[in-house]
Amino acid sequence: MTYPDELRLEVERYLAGLRFTDDPLVEGLEEAMRYSLLAGGKRIRPVLALATARALGRDAAQVLPLAAAIELIHTYSLIHDDLPAMDDDDLRRGRPTNHRVYGEAVAILAGDCLYAEAFRLVLTHQQGDPAGLLRAVAELASATGATGMVGGQFLDVDGRAATGPDGLRHLHELKTGRLIAASVVCVLFLEGASDPATVAYRRFAGELGVLFQIVDDILDVTGTDADLGKPHGSDERHGRRTYVSEYGLDGARKLAATSHRQARERLAHAAAGSGTGSPTELEQITDFIYTRTS
Amino acid sequence: MTYPDELRLEVERYLAGLRFTDDPLVEGLEEAMRYSLLAGGKRIRPVLALATARALGRDAAQVLPLAAAIELIHTYSLIHDDLPAMDDDDLRRGRPTNHRVYGEAVAILAGDCLYAEAFRLVLTHQQGDPAGLLRAVAELASATGATGMVGGQFLDVDGRAATGPDGLRHLHELKTGRLIAASVVCVLFLEGASDPATVAYRRFAGELGVLFQIVDDILDVTGTDADLGKPHGSDERHGRRTYVSEYGLDGARKLAATSHRQARERLAHAAAGSGTGSPTELEQITDFIYTRTS
Repeated sequence: MTYPDELRLEVERYLAGLRFTDDPLVEGLEEAMRYSLLAGGKRIRPVLALATARALGRDAAQVLPLAAAIELIHTYSLIHDDLPAMDDDDLRRGRPTNHRVYGEAVAILAGDCLYAEAFRLVLTHQQGDPAGLLRAVAELASATGATGMVGGQFLDVDGRAATGPDGLRHLHELKTGRLIAASVVCVLFLEGASDPATVAYRRFAGELGVLFQIVDDILDVTGTDADLGKPHGSDERHGRRTYVSEYGLDGARKLAATSHRQARERLAHAAAGSGTGSPTELEQITDFIYTRTS
Repeated sequence: MTYPDELRLEVERYLAGLRFTDDPLVEGLEEAMRYSLLAGGKRIRPVLALATARALGRDAAQVLPLAAAIELIHTYSLIHDDLPAMDDDDLRRGRPTNHRVYGEAVAILAGDCLYAEAFRLVLTHQQGDPAGLLRAVAELASATGATGMVGGQFLDVDGRAATGPDGLRHLHELKTGRLIAASVVCVLFLEGASDPATVAYRRFAGELGVLFQIVDDILDVTGTDADLGKPHGSDERHGRRTYVSEYGLDGARKLAATSHRQARERLAHAAAGSGTGSPTELEQITDFIYTRTS
């Protein structure tokens, strides 16, 4: 299974170089932020952003601030999701969760701060035409607010809200799908791509978000604790509705296969209509999301 | 004591008209957000933004999206500050705090979501030159991240961090001063004001933030529960360092008088150097912040 590790390493280096304050009094907060931010992982969202730049025939490194900002936002969402009032998780990527190390107050603030610093990073360091940049940042905000990530997390917390297969799909579209899609779409906004190209890539990215979630639900049942970096089966323990609980393991696997095929077709369609770049890395990420074991 | 109530009512109407999602499943989240957002108050920050537009000779209504976004951010900070892991407060503006009504999980998400929607609001609804808009939104992010509001809240939570009079001033400059200053400075960015004008107004707004905090600390000791909408004396109960604990009540009152005079002088200087507008409302807010009883 090939993953664009070269892009992942570029992201990793960039994230490691980020500092949020030079105020020694606030160092403790920065430490808590960096603890979760630099916990490794495949960096799927920022790598998607870099790969999208390549697919459009641009230099991947040029969108690093935007890509990193998306990873900051993702990290903030994990810290808040793990809080005692939410999922109350003790482990994340094989290490104690943020609030287990730094306490609940600092963990809440570390999440809040990563979110603020994500906007600051992209607004102060991302090059590009101002109008395109504004559209990209607006997309980030919309993908993470009431009509996106936080709205989806609310559906997850509020058991009454989203029920049945449609409700489940809706929940995940908001909770994880919108930010994954934004990782692709923001780059198209930033680069001032045409509307048809943007629509085509958005269709691809939307399917990628669905695929990601189906596989996530399957892995929670079939994965080993070591692979996942946390105890498997946590969805069932939390009484969470998942693709496996709705469709059974075999049903979920069939859905994943269909979704993967669909995503590849949509990517081929999007890439055919846009620029001089190569969608190779986007293809690799799509295949990786389907076949990953953690 | 005159307050620009006409501007406050404009803000109030605009806030009341805001909707964050038309998704019926997410209504519960929107309700929690609106519960805290529409709890009244003097709306000092957004009124400051509108008054700054007037001082620059512009139409106040034109900066309503930016002004409202700042109030969304302020509301988010109050919800998170009140959480059990932070100040664990039960009352705010005479009503139960957000987490007392909606539970801790929803309160965390309501805060997160108000922050996201603040950025979405200003990025999608605020008119203006893209470059000026980008600078204004970057200032919002910087005023609320590690070098601003959340950094200051960390200093407040982490008792070791800021000690002594200088530490206290630093804490408040980050925790409340930066966002109050941003309420003025963002409007100068948005309107493309000259650098000298921006510097002059920033000096005024910085002093206004200091004045605000000194008076806040005095009121926590001298105010009535009914005026404050929460039990007074909560700073002392939380063992918080305040201007009163550092300088005594008389000392703090003298500091407030000096700070008020300073703020008025700086405002006069800033207004003399900029445009055709009138600083009347900014003067009124400055006097109000000094003489308020709640």
